Amino acid sequence: MSVTAKQIVLASRPNGPVGRENFRLETKELGAPDVGEVLIKVTAMSLDPYMRGRMDDAKSYAKPVEVDGVMEGGTVGEVLESNADGIAPGDKVFGMTGWCDHAIMRAKDLRKLPDGVPETTALGVLGMPGFTGWYGLTEIGEPKEGETLVVAAATGPVGSMVGQYAKHKGLKVIGIAGGEEKCAHAVEKFGFDACLDHRGFSDAKDARAQIGAACPDGIDIYFENVAGKVLEGVLPNMNTFGRIPICGMIAFYDTGGTAESYDLPKFWRSMLVNRMRAQGFIISDHFDRFPAFLKDVAPLVANGTIKFTEDVAEGLENAPDAFMSMLKGGNFGKQIVRIS
Amino acid sequence: MSVTAKQIVLASRPNGPVGRENFRLETKELGAPDVGEVLIKVTAMSLDPYMRGRMDDAKSYAKPVEVDGVMEGGTVGEVLESNADGIAPGDKVFGMTGWCDHAIMRAKDLRKLPDGVPETTALGVLGMPGFTGWYGLTEIGEPKEGETLVVAAATGPVGSMVGQYAKHKGLKVIGIAGGEEKCAHAVEKFGFDACLDHRGFSDAKDARAQIGAACPDGIDIYFENVAGKVLEGVLPNMNTFGRIPICGMIAFYDTGGTAESYDLPKFWRSMLVNRMRAQGFIISDHFDRFPAFLKDVAPLVANGTIKFTEDVAEGLENAPDAFMSMLKGGNFGKQIVRIS
Repeated sequence: MSVTAKQIVLASRPNGPVGRENFRLETKELGAPDVGEVLIKVTAMSLDPYMRGRMDDAKSYAKPVEVDGVMEGGTVGEVLESNADGIAPGDKVFGMTGWCDHAIMRAKDLRKLPDGVPETTALGVLGMPGFTGWYGLTEIGEPKEGETLVVAAATGPVGSMVGQYAKHKGLKVIGIAGGEEKCAHAVEKFGFDACLDHRGFSDAKDARAQIGAACPDGIDIYFENVAGKVLEGVLPNMNTFGRIPICGMIAFYDTGGTAESYDLPKFWRSMLVNRMRAQGFIISDHFDRFPAFLKDVAPLVANGTIKFTEDVAEGLENAPDAFMSMLKGGNFGKQIVRIS
Repeated sequence: MSVTAKQIVLASRPNGPVGRENFRLETKELGAPDVGEVLIKVTAMSLDPYMRGRMDDAKSYAKPVEVDGVMEGGTVGEVLESNADGIAPGDKVFGMTGWCDHAIMRAKDLRKLPDGVPETTALGVLGMPGFTGWYGLTEIGEPKEGETLVVAAATGPVGSMVGQYAKHKGLKVIGIAGGEEKCAHAVEKFGFDACLDHRGFSDAKDARAQIGAACPDGIDIYFENVAGKVLEGVLPNMNTFGRIPICGMIAFYDTGGTAESYDLPKFWRSMLVNRMRAQGFIISDHFDRFPAFLKDVAPLVANGTIKFTEDVAEGLENAPDAFMSMLKGGNFGKQIVRIS
């Protein structure tokens, strides 16, 4: 079998906010898979904030995407042709194929999808985003019943996992999200105790006051995935012995992290005075814990304790627009691109 | 027995750097000790950076000293009169008597001094400063053989414990101190691999370059006790999975921590990219570990593996000058005030 694959490549590195000009749709002829390889038809692709970091050339925890290289990303799909043992046409798999509609992959780099849950859960609630939330909360946040947790991007796949798992463990959970509709969703569907609309924060001082009012007992865990004004509003409300798992900082991505001025001496002093712990983590360091995650969380998803919301864009060619919209908070739930 | 005690009280709160006008020498008549109390003649007093924090009214981990109240501090002394079981005249004790030459204390707030080591070790290497260094390094720093550690105030009682204990555990240790004489002392007496003179850092960029050159394999543990320019120079040299126990920040104390401008977004990003952990601690939360510290370290002091250096001022009335000098790095080793 030979197919013509569509791919989206990095046409140029962004200089400030990402634009359409940074992407290019290309085609590529794929031959037959070599020994140990399979040919995959991609059915759905994940869009995630980490991809923004891969577009820059800055020192980071992972190599940047090369200019003219295929944009990095995880997908689910179906095996069309197999030249590897233990995997056959029709098998449903997850793989880091990048932004494309067909790909040839080594079988050992693929993971078969579990039965009984929708295949797109492997991109979200039971995939890397859900695992990221679960790992950072349980291993770094060390949640204790009765404590208060704050997490932003509350309706996103990481934030909704963090909040729902924390509720499952008996914490009080305050979400932060963009817009009334998302806030209502966090409370009504995901069971958060409250959710604040960050569009209603007039400045960092106001963020501090609103967050403080929603957390009368202070904040024990701040799961950091946005930074920016939310971080400024959270820090003065942190309790003694507070923990901050640092998972991401979407507010800093498009600005290079230098647009606003923060006060490190003040922050540093508060780390000492409040005996706080802050710890950055990158989920790819911890894939050995993925089976433990699935064992713990898959039943909670299957029985409806942990819910998920997906935002689906149609067609590979619409991935760049969906990605740019997501970076601005335009998605509602886990951003997926369906590929027909 | 009735004695006239000399005490140094906080005359006023500093507005910027501490000055003599912030202190006042007073006398107080002490009566006989009540039941459970003892009368102590103080023989030596400790001066420590944390005392600077107690002079301010800012929210901190401990209550400030009241204006007109006796300056807080630990001392060693001899029991003159006892009205408590199990403690007798002539006993040598450590207690938080404050800056004074005689005090009445509850017996249960005192600790008897061990035999076989000089009594002033209870103020330094085997007292709170040594315990602080040992706890922060072992419990938060998690040192591993072959790693690189940086600690400033290298000849001080905390820094010299951190560096010597890290050497004892097989780490490479780079000290930072003020002046050539202290740097030589850190290497020759305390066995550091190298020690940089922070007076030779022309700016943060230069600090970064010099620290980087001294740590060709990067920094795995930065024991934070000074902040300021050293912190700025260290951060870009931190390794992946680096740890920063935050013990103090003397460079920020006298300025209120707002004189210089740091870049929190840049720092925060580096916490994530390098998966670093920063954790503040206050030694008074961990006194339950003090016996374990003494058991581990007292033999190392007795057999000379861990050495100590003291800087002795003479007379209670000279304590304010010695304290102000210490805040500027004028001491050479653990600052003691001998009280005759």
